[in-house]
Order: sequence, then C-alpha cells, then structure tokens
Amino acid sequence: MRRQKPDICVTRVTEWNNGVPRRLDDCVASEEPLEIRINDAPFGVTLRTPGNDSELAMGLLFSEGLITARNQLLSIDHSDHPGLNASNRENVMVVRLSPDAEIPAGSRERKFTAGSACGVCGKAAIDELRNRGIRRPDSGSHFDPRVLCALPEKLRSAQANFSRTGGLHAAGLFTASGELLVLREDIGRHNAVDKVIGWALQQGKAPLSGHVLLASGRGGFEIVQKAIAAGLPVLASVSAPSSLAVRLAREFGITLIGFLRGERFVVYSGEERVIAPPVANAEAPAR
Amino acid sequence: MRRQKPDICVTRVTEWNNGVPRRLDDCVASEEPLEIRINDAPFGVTLRTPGNDSELAMGLLFSEGLITARNQLLSIDHSDHPGLNASNRENVMVVRLSPDAEIPAGSRERKFTAGSACGVCGKAAIDELRNRGIRRPDSGSHFDPRVLCALPEKLRSAQANFSRTGGLHAAGLFTASGELLVLREDIGRHNAVDKVIGWALQQGKAPLSGHVLLASGRGGFEIVQKAIAAGLPVLASVSAPSSLAVRLAREFGITLIGFLRGERFVVYSGEERVIAPPVANAEAPAR
Repeated sequence: MRRQKPDICVTRVTEWNNGVPRRLDDCVASEEPLEIRINDAPFGVTLRTPGNDSELAMGLLFSEGLITARNQLLSIDHSDHPGLNASNRENVMVVRLSPDAEIPAGSRERKFTAGSACGVCGKAAIDELRNRGIRRPDSGSHFDPRVLCALPEKLRSAQANFSRTGGLHAAGLFTASGELLVLREDIGRHNAVDKVIGWALQQGKAPLSGHVLLASGRGGFEIVQKAIAAGLPVLASVSAPSSLAVRLAREFGITLIGFLRGERFVVYSGEERVIAPPVANAEAPAR
Repeated sequence: MRRQKPDICVTRVTEWNNGVPRRLDDCVASEEPLEIRINDAPFGVTLRTPGNDSELAMGLLFSEGLITARNQLLSIDHSDHPGLNASNRENVMVVRLSPDAEIPAGSRERKFTAGSACGVCGKAAIDELRNRGIRRPDSGSHFDPRVLCALPEKLRSAQANFSRTGGLHAAGLFTASGELLVLREDIGRHNAVDKVIGWALQQGKAPLSGHVLLASGRGGFEIVQKAIAAGLPVLASVSAPSSLAVRLAREFGITLIGFLRGERFVVYSGEERVIAPPVANAEAPAR
C-alpha cells in the first residue's frame, strides 16, 4: 500500500463485477492513530485521517473544555522526538497549555457519572456541559430554509474535489447566507467536526455565532456537544439524530436539523431560528 | 420525549417541506450511556442504543480480549444497586469474571503505544492483537460471490422490521449459504458488531468460522479488529474500508470486502475465499 497524499493510500484490490474478476489499483482513506500529549503527558489517542492535525487537536481540546480560548494554547506541533521516525512523529501532537488552562483529571467517563445524583445517564453529561459554563447560542439570527436546503449539494460538490475514496465523513461550516467557509474530511465523523472547530479557533472565528455546521452521517450526542461548545446556533445533517442528541440540543437551545434532503428537512429543536409561525399540527408521521 | 420501545423514542418535531411547515410526531433512535463494571470496578462507558445490553457487554469484553471463552464470564446483569432508579440500573451492566480472566491495566491507548518500537502507529495495534494469541481464520471455506451479493438486501429487509428511525447502524451474521442468523442495530456501528459477537458467544457459536459478518457504514480498524477476534473469515460492507483496516485484514488473512452493491464488490484482502483464479489485471480505477 503506498501513500498518494497524506489522506489517501493506493492499493491493489480485486473487483468482482457480475462474474468477472479483475485486479486493479484503488484508493482508500488513510487511517492512523494520533496521540495528543499535553505538557509532555499523554492525553489520548484518536484514530484519524492524517492532515490538519493541529486543527484536530485544537478542536478536540476546545470541545472537551480543556481550553476555552485560543490564547490558552502556547504551542501545538508534531513531535520532534529523536527516538521516533518521521511517520511516527506525524502521529504525535505535542500541545503546551498556559498555566490557566484546566487539565481535568478524569476522562470521558467523568461526563456520564461524576457529580450527578442519577448515576450513569444522559443528564449527567448535560450537567457536565452546563458546569463548564457553556451558554445557549444567540437566538437573534434567522436562517432561511431555502438556503439550508442548498447546503448538502454544496458540501457534496466541494467534497468531490477532495475525496477519491468514498470512505470519508465530512463537516462543512457555512455562513447564514450559505457560503462554505471550510470543509474537513476524516474517517471519523467527530474528527471532521473537531477539525472544523479547530480551524475556526485558529482563524479567530470562535464562538461561531451566525454559522451553520453541516455534518455527514448520523448525529449523536457527541456531535451536538461539540457544536454547542463551539457556540454554533444551527447543526444540520442529512441523516437522523439520536434521542440524547435531541435532548441535549433542546437543553441548550441549539437548532438541530435532520434529514436535510432536497426541499425537505425535520427540525428537532430550536425551530424559531428557521421557521416563522404559525405552524399547523399534523397526525401523519414524518416519513 | 417518550419511550416507545427500549430502542425508540417518540418526540414532537417540525417538518419543513417545500415551504410548508407542520408539527408531527417522529421516532428517533434511543441513545443512552452504558457503564460496564467488572468485579465492582468501572471498566468503561459506551454510548449505545438500549437493548441486548448483555450481548453488547460480552461482545465488547471478548473483542477487547478480556475474556477468551464464555465460561470465563461468571455472571452478567443489569445493576441492582438500591441507590439507582430503574432507568439508571438499565444503564449499568455488572460483570463478574472468573479468576483466570485477564483484566488489563491499560486502556485503548495501550494498543497503539505500549510494547512497540514504532511509537504511536498502526503496527503497534496489530502487534497487540497478535500478542493476544489471535490466529488467522480458517482458509478452507469458500464463499459464493452471488450469495454475498444477496446479503445487503437481506439485511435491509430484516432491518425494515426493526428500525423506524433511519438512525441506526446494523450488523448481520450470515452463514456461508446466505442465511441470516442474527441482526443487531445500534446508534454506534461498533456496538452493533459487539452485540452480534456477544450473541454468538451466548449461543456457543464463537469462534465464527464459516460465517460472514455484514456491517453497515464505513469499515475502520476497530470493526476489522472485532471480526478477527471473533474468528470470522469474511467481513463485508456496502461502503469503503480504511487503510489501517486493509492492513490489519491482510496481516490476519481475513477476507475484507467493500462496496458490496448490486452485482459488484471489491476485495481488499483474502480474495482466495471468494474468487477462483485466474484474475486479469486492469489499469482502470475501481470507480
């Protein structure tokens, strides 16, 4: 398998097509572990598609609440450890944080268990976000439904210039008027979102009030959590959200849109940003 | 939001359809955290769709190498802790392992870093599997390409009886002749695969030689790792695998199939189980 670009490898495969087999070269999305080290201590490992690694690390630290502003991050670089070869250095990001950044002792489990009377549950995770001081996004901005309906096609055509593997998730950041500001792709959906958030931090654009994030794939709790942490008023997907994603979106007043396809979408939370009253009640199911 | 079944919630949403908004009830896939406790110590938390939780925990412990046989698991039950209410008890699985089961001190990070000269890399994760004594699946069995092509439609029609949300990943276990033995769905693709593996363990069917696993969504490293741990000779997907998934499949000689759609698929590894020689070489890309 040879690397064609940081994010794409080429490899020999066998295609079977209606009884006829043949060998040919195919592109696959690159997947490698990335270790993030904070002030020389290991923080975690994520499987990701190489490329935009500093954005990924910044976005992850921001959405996990380790940094709340760009200036808390003193430096962020691939490792220059002499004991590692070049490709392994690319798989280690070394982050230095300012003394006022908070490095939590716990891990992901903490969100669902610590400091909560309910044991293990979604409420604990929602409380954890609230305890970080994360606020509701601005409620004043309005987003035109016709503009929203045009976003998936814009994301797809931008992706066509990037991806040749069919194996990558995408996240795109748009303005309220539908301009695509940045597209990031990754084998992991959460990584693609973290890269976009990290890009916004680097550009000095966070919090992302007045913007829409469109993410490929299903929208679970973690994607909504990242969008809320980044201050996004609208999170959209061509697919379905989960129950916990909907609960979290409602708690924080973010607009959560699913099934954004053609001239139709479903609003699970925060409809006032996209739909003006009155709205009729119907008994038929959405699909 | 009200719970309709363990895996489905019903909630009020707003549909926007070509300029016409209306309010109606919609189903969303349930997502809740599940904490797994081993011998009273916390092991980890996964976000999952409730249902088949003992299968999920068993499959996870097996594919992570904590148990290698069913009889190492003395008991597995939802928590009966008096301090938790009913719904929180459902989010905690308590597992008791026999004294000969190995409880590793490290975590997921260990796979990509520990005991490897390369630092953080895919090779470390591959070595970790090999160090667990996991062997190549049997090479004798043959799988008919026409039978494989029929599997996605069988999975879809079985899913139609289950899912009403559009938000669930699926994993299906098939015999070599194409009979669907079990289907499991979950908001997380890895959970759906773990539930299938846990089911096989409970049925005394593991290792799963002579079987095919069909998983929805993209095939990354972790799905291939689970398939190898379960002894599956063939892992198929309607979508694309990653570079690390292909590398791992080749190292362990598992047949990895992607883009299984209509009368066509691409074999990334272990083609001898599905395609008889000779195979012509072609220069054109696979798509």
